[in-house]
Amino acid sequence: MTGTLTIAGLGPGDEALITPEVSAALAMATDIIGYAPYVSRVPPRAGLTLHPSDNRVELQRAGEALRLASEGRQVVVVSSGDPGVFAMASAVFEALEDMPQWHDLPIRVLPGVTAMLAAAASAGAPLGHDFCAINLSDNLKPWSLIEKRLRLAAEADFAIAVYNPRSASRPEGFARTLEILREAGCDERIVIFARAVSTPEQRIEMVELRDARPEMADMRTLVIVGNSATRRVGRWVYAPRQVR
Amino acid sequence: MTGTLTIAGLGPGDEALITPEVSAALAMATDIIGYAPYVSRVPPRAGLTLHPSDNRVELQRAGEALRLASEGRQVVVVSSGDPGVFAMASAVFEALEDMPQWHDLPIRVLPGVTAMLAAAASAGAPLGHDFCAINLSDNLKPWSLIEKRLRLAAEADFAIAVYNPRSASRPEGFARTLEILREAGCDERIVIFARAVSTPEQRIEMVELRDARPEMADMRTLVIVGNSATRRVGRWVYAPRQVR
Repeated sequence: MTGTLTIAGLGPGDEALITPEVSAALAMATDIIGYAPYVSRVPPRAGLTLHPSDNRVELQRAGEALRLASEGRQVVVVSSGDPGVFAMASAVFEALEDMPQWHDLPIRVLPGVTAMLAAAASAGAPLGHDFCAINLSDNLKPWSLIEKRLRLAAEADFAIAVYNPRSASRPEGFARTLEILREAGCDERIVIFARAVSTPEQRIEMVELRDARPEMADMRTLVIVGNSATRRVGRWVYAPRQVR
Repeated sequence: MTGTLTIAGLGPGDEALITPEVSAALAMATDIIGYAPYVSRVPPRAGLTLHPSDNRVELQRAGEALRLASEGRQVVVVSSGDPGVFAMASAVFEALEDMPQWHDLPIRVLPGVTAMLAAAASAGAPLGHDFCAINLSDNLKPWSLIEKRLRLAAEADFAIAVYNPRSASRPEGFARTLEILREAGCDERIVIFARAVSTPEQRIEMVELRDARPEMADMRTLVIVGNSATRRVGRWVYAPRQVR
């Protein structure tokens, strides 16, 4: 049997946000590969091998997935959210680049609901106008580039979705982010802290940037900084469609 | 019975990309409201009233949805893709702002797979690093702001997802966009033209920006301009995770 490699997004957490396309791929899989907390979202069954792995081993994991597919297995690499947004799809193509013998493997990328879309929906419509997404992890890029992008995003008046704002190993980056945005004149912008979106632990907080504190974000938080026109209506926050 | 208003995303076209959460909302609805081509994606059934409407009447449509919900109907406003990305959610909250008597209506926004995620998945992983999304329609914002954002996005080295690149009424904006990006030194960037993604008419084209022509985009195209590091592997294109 020909092996296949599917790179699938499980959405932000709620099973009702997993697309039928992804569910069908999981049902056909012989092997599930991914970061352990995501693999644990796939129910075990006969004939299915689960391969949970640690964080920060994306390339090894991608190589293992390609190898298993080349041996005829039906492999699904799982990410949370969308696999193409700060997740496993780029790592698989990077691993593939060094392995020309596998370039003809049947590979599919199945999109999913990425965290910023679920966070935005929980809060209203803060991404209803032009926006950007910036990953605050500086494991794979210099912090100076993150700072530059934050300044240019503020100047462009994009709403800003901040992925991975804070981790135990990087406590200072998000504090610095808030400083940079204050320096850029964003004090009055509305900031949304969306924690564990779509799970039972979901918690949504909204404050003006001047009142935002670094501790309001943790590893499970997605932060959205509104643009200069973003405003509240009732319990909601939204980006107006019209800008003059 | 208490009325409810649900603002739901139908994904880019393929039924297998509609989340179970949205399918459940459609199954419970008494009224479906939206732009006619999107309403036509919901199968008719007894007890369900379809309210298709024209393009560019978003605010009237939103007001109608709120009114029906206030009368006790189970209303679902449908958008393609995600309802919070250049779609109906912002219009509903804008209409709500003028109607304080409806601020306590039960409203939910249900996220969906927005076009750029499906387009990216079809091509590989061009959004695997920091990126932005810019709507090229200047119906609701000045063209000068679009130009400014394109320049800053190029300077920030974001991948750029271009929504609504071209319509019959705005043939020149996308041509100007390509010029701006050329002036910004993006000649060698990879551009993905993803037309009618996830439908039987899907067509994916990839060229270097220097070879991109305005006619390669139409109303059904989502354009992704890669960042400066974006590269090809086999038939795929991806943004490397690591940037120095």
